[in-house]
Amino acid sequence: MHIVAVGGSDAGISAALRAREVDPGVEFTVVCADAYPNFSICGIPYYVSGEVPHWRNLAHRTYADLEAAGMRLRLDTTARKVDVAARRLHVTGPDGAEDVIPYDELIIGTGAVPVRPPIAGLDAIGPADGVHLLHAMDDTFAIMRTLEEAAPDSAVIVGAGYIGLEMAEALAARGLAVTQVEQLGQVLPTVDPELGTLVRAELEGHGVTVRPGTTVREITRAEAGAPGPLRVTAGTADGEPVTLHAGLVLVVTGVRPETALAVSAGASVGVRGAIAVDKAMRTGVPGVFAAGDCVITHHRLLGETYLPLGTTAHKQGRVAGENATGRRIREFAGSLGTQVVKVFDHAAARTGLKDAEARTAGFDPVTVACQADDHKAYYPGSHRIAMRFTGDRATGRLLGAQLFGHKHAEVAKRVDIAATAIFHGMTIDDLSDLDLSYTPPLGSPWDAVQMGAQAWARQVSPLTADLDRVLR
Amino acid sequence: MHIVAVGGSDAGISAALRAREVDPGVEFTVVCADAYPNFSICGIPYYVSGEVPHWRNLAHRTYADLEAAGMRLRLDTTARKVDVAARRLHVTGPDGAEDVIPYDELIIGTGAVPVRPPIAGLDAIGPADGVHLLHAMDDTFAIMRTLEEAAPDSAVIVGAGYIGLEMAEALAARGLAVTQVEQLGQVLPTVDPELGTLVRAELEGHGVTVRPGTTVREITRAEAGAPGPLRVTAGTADGEPVTLHAGLVLVVTGVRPETALAVSAGASVGVRGAIAVDKAMRTGVPGVFAAGDCVITHHRLLGETYLPLGTTAHKQGRVAGENATGRRIREFAGSLGTQVVKVFDHAAARTGLKDAEARTAGFDPVTVACQADDHKAYYPGSHRIAMRFTGDRATGRLLGAQLFGHKHAEVAKRVDIAATAIFHGMTIDDLSDLDLSYTPPLGSPWDAVQMGAQAWARQVSPLTADLDRVLR
Repeated sequence: MHIVAVGGSDAGISAALRAREVDPGVEFTVVCADAYPNFSICGIPYYVSGEVPHWRNLAHRTYADLEAAGMRLRLDTTARKVDVAARRLHVTGPDGAEDVIPYDELIIGTGAVPVRPPIAGLDAIGPADGVHLLHAMDDTFAIMRTLEEAAPDSAVIVGAGYIGLEMAEALAARGLAVTQVEQLGQVLPTVDPELGTLVRAELEGHGVTVRPGTTVREITRAEAGAPGPLRVTAGTADGEPVTLHAGLVLVVTGVRPETALAVSAGASVGVRGAIAVDKAMRTGVPGVFAAGDCVITHHRLLGETYLPLGTTAHKQGRVAGENATGRRIREFAGSLGTQVVKVFDHAAARTGLKDAEARTAGFDPVTVACQADDHKAYYPGSHRIAMRFTGDRATGRLLGAQLFGHKHAEVAKRVDIAATAIFHGMTIDDLSDLDLSYTPPLGSPWDAVQMGAQAWARQVSPLTADLDRVLR
Repeated sequence: MHIVAVGGSDAGISAALRAREVDPGVEFTVVCADAYPNFSICGIPYYVSGEVPHWRNLAHRTYADLEAAGMRLRLDTTARKVDVAARRLHVTGPDGAEDVIPYDELIIGTGAVPVRPPIAGLDAIGPADGVHLLHAMDDTFAIMRTLEEAAPDSAVIVGAGYIGLEMAEALAARGLAVTQVEQLGQVLPTVDPELGTLVRAELEGHGVTVRPGTTVREITRAEAGAPGPLRVTAGTADGEPVTLHAGLVLVVTGVRPETALAVSAGASVGVRGAIAVDKAMRTGVPGVFAAGDCVITHHRLLGETYLPLGTTAHKQGRVAGENATGRRIREFAGSLGTQVVKVFDHAAARTGLKDAEARTAGFDPVTVACQADDHKAYYPGSHRIAMRFTGDRATGRLLGAQLFGHKHAEVAKRVDIAATAIFHGMTIDDLSDLDLSYTPPLGSPWDAVQMGAQAWARQVSPLTADLDRVLR
């Protein structure tokens, strides 16, 4: 039995590890388009900032670790075509030579590529000029070359999602004057605007200039004598022109699924053009699974969506690898869009749906804002956590939770408690019933998430919040 | 409608707050035996250590807060007798005067009192000599008097449970040479011995002398010229005599339920002599509820047990207060014995059952030890977490989790993820399916608890761990 994965990132490597774990007799080949298998892409900002001293540290596992786990790696090798009938993968190797890899089962984990937004000049300008996209290690090396060789003193970051925020912190840590431009009206649009405002304050408190509601139109080399070598021309929502100059421009406005190989093999696409797969990660093409940032995401509250995340790619890859062995059919349990980002000294975390998403999805959401301490305020070092709990008005079902607090206020693991509760369809009121841990230096008799749940229940329906429980 | 609670600690105050929330028209009186309603008993060690500068800071709410919430407080008032037929509570007030309080519903929250272990001399010696029990604020003041007036340079702590460990840290922080004596073979007997060993190392690393397997026989005043004013005579399990001297002896060997009032009213007792209540916190005596450290604990895995914890008292009190209003019948959802304790720079947390408890309860437990980082090791400041996951061999059901790690390694909130999973009857293998948050500074693509779950599944049954899922 020979399984081949295309893609050496989270999905492909997880598939290989799990397949070999489930069936140590299976042969597994991972075809990796670059020379950096199993790298932690999410760690790039911390290499750029200098907190991670060497890029090799970003490898989840070394090449030797991966080989020791029993997989064969084909680096710098590009998958060109799938011969579905013959179960053969056509590839181009590092020396340009064509090759054919026979397989019994194929797992496509081609990931995503950065979106190139419609910005004039973006095609004519690039890393050599200090204008960068960021997704893979090669992009990282290019950014580091700009930082080291051109030594820019300022940067414009186009996009204020997770990576944009992390890169703002990284570049600010390196001493650059950073301007963050976001087309939408807030930074971190994956949380409600009220928490976005807190994230913005954190950025500004660390010297980042934040320009939400601003669309970049053009990036060009600036004229001689300009305040910086690159000129970014933008406009606000009400048409006011904005001109910025910088030594480095980073465009991080999201990703789109890389589906060419799968589509050429006959796979269908679904939401946002991602490869359609069932929960067992089957594409429907005989012998072809797919997983990771290239496929649709089964979401426990939304059904099929597209929500590329490393955590999800690991899980989907694991399912694909297990199922490809033919030993059993496991299903991906579904995403809740659980995410956290550290922004300087704070962290913002979310799970489930934010208010607008819940409304779009057909719920009748109520979102209640509240605050609670991470631990008893009498014990030194306590921090206030800002929370937003979203629940369905009619059923009281917990739909989402968003937390913002100090990086040591355990907001990530607290959102995980909510994620575990949503996974099981709990009502918000039920959260209070959970038996959670307490000691004054690390919590409260009612944990912050329970205080948030009680605030929601009080506001929404003080006397009927748990009607459901009474009746059942 | 007039509800009366006996006891001004977690259960009584939670009952009052909830009753008033559910029915703002209800009158509520809290009868409090001392002058410290709603004090955070769990915070006492941090006042003793000096980290909490004033004992008043330990109040969860001030007297004014409590009155503003609509309850009437009767301080320094002892409940003597319940006239069940007439629904009247007989009390003795602060001036010694007898009084009678009519009620419609009564909630008994008399709490627990420290166990006085069979140690010779303990009845003849007391706080004035530097020998202390510790449970309430008055005990705290007595300890502080000893510390300030006698200025002891050494302490013997009898007992190495939560409070014993926290007091070891507190007294060490004040510069005392601390010896911790524990009758059982390990410190923190509420976790498996393997984690107890790590806790012991943490104590010893901070200068605490640890003597497990040592039973104290006698405490007396020492002879003139002895190394300390108090002599503690003890013996090891194999009969070796141990003599210790200290300026302060603290006996913290657990608590027993305070049930006299309830029993005299006709309530039955159950496990460990605690007041028997149903999940609605009814004693069976007409008009009499009970909650908190004085009652049995409904445990989600063990059924009826006795497990006094502040978190549980809050929840039980809330249920009792709500039900006493007559507006509805809510049930206490049950404990999992979730607990955490900080010991110097580390924390130990547990939820559910440890291996031996699971075996006693009739499961066929398998406990797997493993380690994982709190966040990606390439990001600075990561800490290793030692974990033990206990599951049922036949079903794979998660029965318990124990974590030990740095105090900033979020072990408390991670054990809460496990607690939420156990609450819902998840299998250990299912833990991997949870969509938990990730960013390199705050986690891993598979959170530590998921890595632990995978380690369990690999060790126990690599190929059939999720047979259950496949079949359903």
